[in-house]
Amino acid sequence: MTIKIGVIGTGAIGREHIDRIENILSGGEVKAVTDVNQESAYKAVKDYNLDATVYPDDVALVGDPNIDAVFVTSWGPAHEQSVLLAIEAGKYVFCEKPLATSAEGCMRIVDAEQKQGKRLVQVGFMRRYDEGYVQLKEALDNNEIGDPLMIHCSHRNPGVDENYKTNMAVTETLIHEIDALHWLIDDNYESVRVDFPRKTKHSHAELQDPQVFTLKTQGGVLIHAEVFVNCKYGYDIQCEVMGEEGIAKLPEVASVVVRKESKLSSNILNDWKIRFMDAYNKELQNFLDSVEKYGEPQGPTSWDGYIAAVTADACLQAQETGEEVDIKLQDTPDFYKKQVAVRN
Amino acid sequence: MTIKIGVIGTGAIGREHIDRIENILSGGEVKAVTDVNQESAYKAVKDYNLDATVYPDDVALVGDPNIDAVFVTSWGPAHEQSVLLAIEAGKYVFCEKPLATSAEGCMRIVDAEQKQGKRLVQVGFMRRYDEGYVQLKEALDNNEIGDPLMIHCSHRNPGVDENYKTNMAVTETLIHEIDALHWLIDDNYESVRVDFPRKTKHSHAELQDPQVFTLKTQGGVLIHAEVFVNCKYGYDIQCEVMGEEGIAKLPEVASVVVRKESKLSSNILNDWKIRFMDAYNKELQNFLDSVEKYGEPQGPTSWDGYIAAVTADACLQAQETGEEVDIKLQDTPDFYKKQVAVRN
Amino acid sequence: MTIKIGVIGTGAIGREHIDRIENILSGGEVKAVTDVNQESAYKAVKDYNLDATVYPDDVALVGDPNIDAVFVTSWGPAHEQSVLLAIEAGKYVFCEKPLATSAEGCMRIVDAEQKQGKRLVQVGFMRRYDEGYVQLKEALDNNEIGDPLMIHCSHRNPGVDENYKTNMAVTETLIHEIDALHWLIDDNYESVRVDFPRKTKHSHAELQDPQVFTLKTQGGVLIHAEVFVNCKYGYDIQCEVMGEEGIAKLPEVASVVVRKESKLSSNILNDWKIRFMDAYNKELQNFLDSVEKYGEPQGPTSWDGYIAAVTADACLQAQETGEEVDIKLQDTPDFYKKQVAVRN
Amino acid sequence: MTIKIGVIGTGAIGREHIDRIENILSGGEVKAVTDVNQESAYKAVKDYNLDATVYPDDVALVGDPNIDAVFVTSWGPAHEQSVLLAIEAGKYVFCEKPLATSAEGCMRIVDAEQKQGKRLVQVGFMRRYDEGYVQLKEALDNNEIGDPLMIHCSHRNPGVDENYKTNMAVTETLIHEIDALHWLIDDNYESVRVDFPRKTKHSHAELQDPQVFTLKTQGGVLIHAEVFVNCKYGYDIQCEVMGEEGIAKLPEVASVVVRKESKLSSNILNDWKIRFMDAYNKELQNFLDSVEKYGEPQGPTSWDGYIAAVTADACLQAQETGEEVDIKLQDTPDFYKKQVAVRN
Repeated sequence: MTIKIGVIGTGAIGREHIDRIENILSGGEVKAVTDVNQESAYKAVKDYNLDATVYPDDVALVGDPNIDAVFVTSWGPAHEQSVLLAIEAGKYVFCEKPLATSAEGCMRIVDAEQKQGKRLVQVGFMRRYDEGYVQLKEALDNNEIGDPLMIHCSHRNPGVDENYKTNMAVTETLIHEIDALHWLIDDNYESVRVDFPRKTKHSHAELQDPQVFTLKTQGGVLIHAEVFVNCKYGYDIQCEVMGEEGIAKLPEVASVVVRKESKLSSNILNDWKIRFMDAYNKELQNFLDSVEKYGEPQGPTSWDGYIAAVTADACLQAQETGEEVDIKLQDTPDFYKKQVAVRN
Repeated sequence: MTIKIGVIGTGAIGREHIDRIENILSGGEVKAVTDVNQESAYKAVKDYNLDATVYPDDVALVGDPNIDAVFVTSWGPAHEQSVLLAIEAGKYVFCEKPLATSAEGCMRIVDAEQKQGKRLVQVGFMRRYDEGYVQLKEALDNNEIGDPLMIHCSHRNPGVDENYKTNMAVTETLIHEIDALHWLIDDNYESVRVDFPRKTKHSHAELQDPQVFTLKTQGGVLIHAEVFVNCKYGYDIQCEVMGEEGIAKLPEVASVVVRKESKLSSNILNDWKIRFMDAYNKELQNFLDSVEKYGEPQGPTSWDGYIAAVTADACLQAQETGEEVDIKLQDTPDFYKKQVAVRN
Repeated sequence: MTIKIGVIGTGAIGREHIDRIENILSGGEVKAVTDVNQESAYKAVKDYNLDATVYPDDVALVGDPNIDAVFVTSWGPAHEQSVLLAIEAGKYVFCEKPLATSAEGCMRIVDAEQKQGKRLVQVGFMRRYDEGYVQLKEALDNNEIGDPLMIHCSHRNPGVDENYKTNMAVTETLIHEIDALHWLIDDNYESVRVDFPRKTKHSHAELQDPQVFTLKTQGGVLIHAEVFVNCKYGYDIQCEVMGEEGIAKLPEVASVVVRKESKLSSNILNDWKIRFMDAYNKELQNFLDSVEKYGEPQGPTSWDGYIAAVTADACLQAQETGEEVDIKLQDTPDFYKKQVAVRN
Repeated sequence: MTIKIGVIGTGAIGREHIDRIENILSGGEVKAVTDVNQESAYKAVKDYNLDATVYPDDVALVGDPNIDAVFVTSWGPAHEQSVLLAIEAGKYVFCEKPLATSAEGCMRIVDAEQKQGKRLVQVGFMRRYDEGYVQLKEALDNNEIGDPLMIHCSHRNPGVDENYKTNMAVTETLIHEIDALHWLIDDNYESVRVDFPRKTKHSHAELQDPQVFTLKTQGGVLIHAEVFVNCKYGYDIQCEVMGEEGIAKLPEVASVVVRKESKLSSNILNDWKIRFMDAYNKELQNFLDSVEKYGEPQGPTSWDGYIAAVTADACLQAQETGEEVDIKLQDTPDFYKKQVAVRN
């Protein structure tokens, strides 16, 4: 069976997902597209040679009875409405981050989904599909290092442009760690504090860079999450978990090892798209496969989207106040507690 | 466009390729199958839920006008006939190793293909699609280590059963290095010699294990290729190229790094299928994409199949005689000299 | 010339230094010993076959006109008096940490030494002589990674006994990082805060373990220093400096690399004495060589001892209060600013 | 007790050993020197501020009744005579390689030493004292990888000058592997063959570089020993032993790890003196300690010197003939079979 997909938002990420579905993955077909910029929607149809209807808006697209699943890849503030429309129509949703721009918006989605009685929504946190994170999660789940006590992680980009402001360290960058870390240790955040080291000379006036977020969980795990988006040397994602019996760490990205000019070296990537290309592919393939095989997506849920929203808000407040800020999550509904099987 | 595929041979590797085409890759569809064991063919159709005709033999399958490309995944001695049939019918062929069981057989295929005036055949040497080999090839092509002088490589399996005899070190194991190494350094083999260290106690009566093949190329590169199929510790593929300016080496397989019980360790795989899963996927996706985009497959050619056959024969003779054996290759036809672009 | 040494304190560390001077290093000779336990002093003379006088106390030993240098390896609270005696007698001093048990005590030593007009005292912070730290310091001094912004370091022991209490994480463990880090980046500490993750089950009632100290420097460098003394897996010292252009990290301890049972592994030490054996040897050899060649020791100074004392006090206060505590250092006297050449 | 040493040969290596004895190590004192160039001998006394007699020749120096041990660091062809003189005088000998320039010369030394009834001679093969080799030997002796089957090792220098000819790959370079490898696996060589890859453009007319020596042992171990003295990239010593249960490999030299400019890199040394500085120190300290504690040196014996001479001769013959050459060693005398304890 081929899942018929409608794509809401044909900007960069929308086009990439269309390319994946059409040219790389198996089991899906783009049959409808829309964008606030209709020309962009028509262009996508043409560029990817789609057999797809162009709709004027998300309402119309979601209403197409031939569409099984909706991809929400529009501008962040538009996500909530599209997701709610799709849920109400009983359609599957793959929604890029953020699920909604507020905790309340996420909660509206959570409520709507529960009313439908089954999971329909997967949020685009692709880290969980990265082979290194999968291995790290397995090591933890297999109790290879005992119960976790501390995490030290780093999210480093070689550089960002002037549009990237201090708060985007949370909404655009740390957001991936926010999702990945609570999933990794199966724990909830309790508080966050931010430290600002001296600003690197490679940053600009409106960006404090680097930043270190100290998160504490209900289980007592202490997390230091460094965000450093003008680190110059490359795109580098590090994550190390200290447990009661040992320590486990993300592998370095595999790279040919060269001995030359008195150096033993391997390559560090510069591009996050290359770093997580496989994860993006596996994420979408898993969405398609899960919907077909189990009738429910198995990836990050609406509840994960809610956790990310609440935590990100607290991180922003911590940035502004310089204080330790509580992260107040509602109790996880049973609906979202059942086991998730992300690996094929 | 979806490429319509006929599969000749529905044993283990045939079924895996069917699964890839149907459930993992994009752009292909299995529309016909055959097997000397007709039940096996019917079972494949059922197991993979194929919309495919079961044919009594390769002649009939190749004759189906709806089939664009033929996958030859039958027993080795049957390959030559099926490939020749497909070429004569002007169809694309993906043929698992060996292309043919003799140099003469390979040459017949080479001749037939040239008569058709374009490349139709890709041989299933998947190493060229492994990310590590691709990086190593790029390092060489970019002259990062200067001209190559020596290669040291190892092909190690944790263990083999009693059906695996001394000669299979060539035909089943070294065959991958035979293809990958001449591609890597763009050079032709000239001679081979075999050294037998003391046999490991984990081998059996009819298997000399390990073995080391010393190959010399026309360009003067000295290659030591170790085959060790009862190495116990894991499935491990190593390859290091010593050049005039430096050395480049395949990366280790990325693995979570653990500190525990006084050891800093990462995992070594045991299963070649996991080791080269991505390479198999990329190999077939590249075949499908190349046929669609360029009208010719871009992977290992019939001529590569011929080189492998001649070289393997010399290696077998070297095993038997204990002498250095010449590898006498005919000159590469211009037809097979044009640039091959394997990477998407 | 052989430097004639008097050793005050013939406990474990005193005996080790005697062994080094007599049996491993060049240029020193133990000619006098004393200990509050006189039997211990006599035993050291006998065990190491010393040609040395046993004195009843530090006053008598320091008064021996044949003694060029005094090693203070007694109980911490006794250090200050012995060091002051030696300084007043114009003798060189190698003093194990702590230089004195209070900032005021250290300042009395600093004042006394300045009155003598030349550096006489070296404090036993051996990390600066560790090959890895030396390389890291060179990388920073050579501006290989630009100006430092953050440091992440870990001090992990496999386990400690019940005598080790929470405060000893500062006085016995972190004290080494306190000295090494300000030396590494040539900066002064400004504040410290402590976070306590959930206590590992391998700790005991009176020990909060692990602990993470967040230190900030006058230059704006943010330091996370983890102390984890029941980490189980080994003795492991990590230090990574994030700079404006790149990152530099202590090397792992060199160890044979083994492939076995599906693991690629190297060994982690369990014993700090083995980890820093070379550093201890180089530290003392450098003391002996510097005294002979330059007439002044070149290692950690009394001022470094003072910095360690003030910083450790703040760390202890941070442990008790849970607050961020200021580290108020007096200005560095010019006397202690001149260049130190620690490497032969 | 201080061992009184006479040094025969005050060239570069002689001076370095004098420096070690006087300024780095414990337990030895240079009391006599000689050199065919008497000025060189006088200069050494002055430069190192020695309390030593300058003798006109080795006969006179060995005759000094105050001398306990003789260091033979003269020109290779002079070694045999000096060593024999020292043995006949019952003195300990530390002799740099070669012990003698012929197998017969070595055998004369072996015979003379046996007549004295105890081991007097240690040959300067310092690899056995390198921490990496010690660990590798321990791994093998502890049966961590089972019985050895193959060894792959490399000896690479960044470059050599025009005085270095093809045969010196054996006498100056491979000679270290010849000693280290048979010690490592406790086995005897049986044959050797040489392969010459294409010569690197960085070599010169009279030097075939690189070369690969294939050695076989009586126990069936197959050794590939690469000598590559114009490898450009650094001084690099590699050694990997493949056993029946696993593989063990020399560690890389510990080096600070840097992330910078899209590379993760560590440093490779260029200077063999730095690479083996610790090994040289430990080698001589072990000689001094063993002589004092056990009355016999515990390092490489005259018999090891004989093995090196016979094997090197066969390697030279293999270079010239291009054939596999037998290595015919006499049976090891019981005198040289007793356990050697090289580690303190």
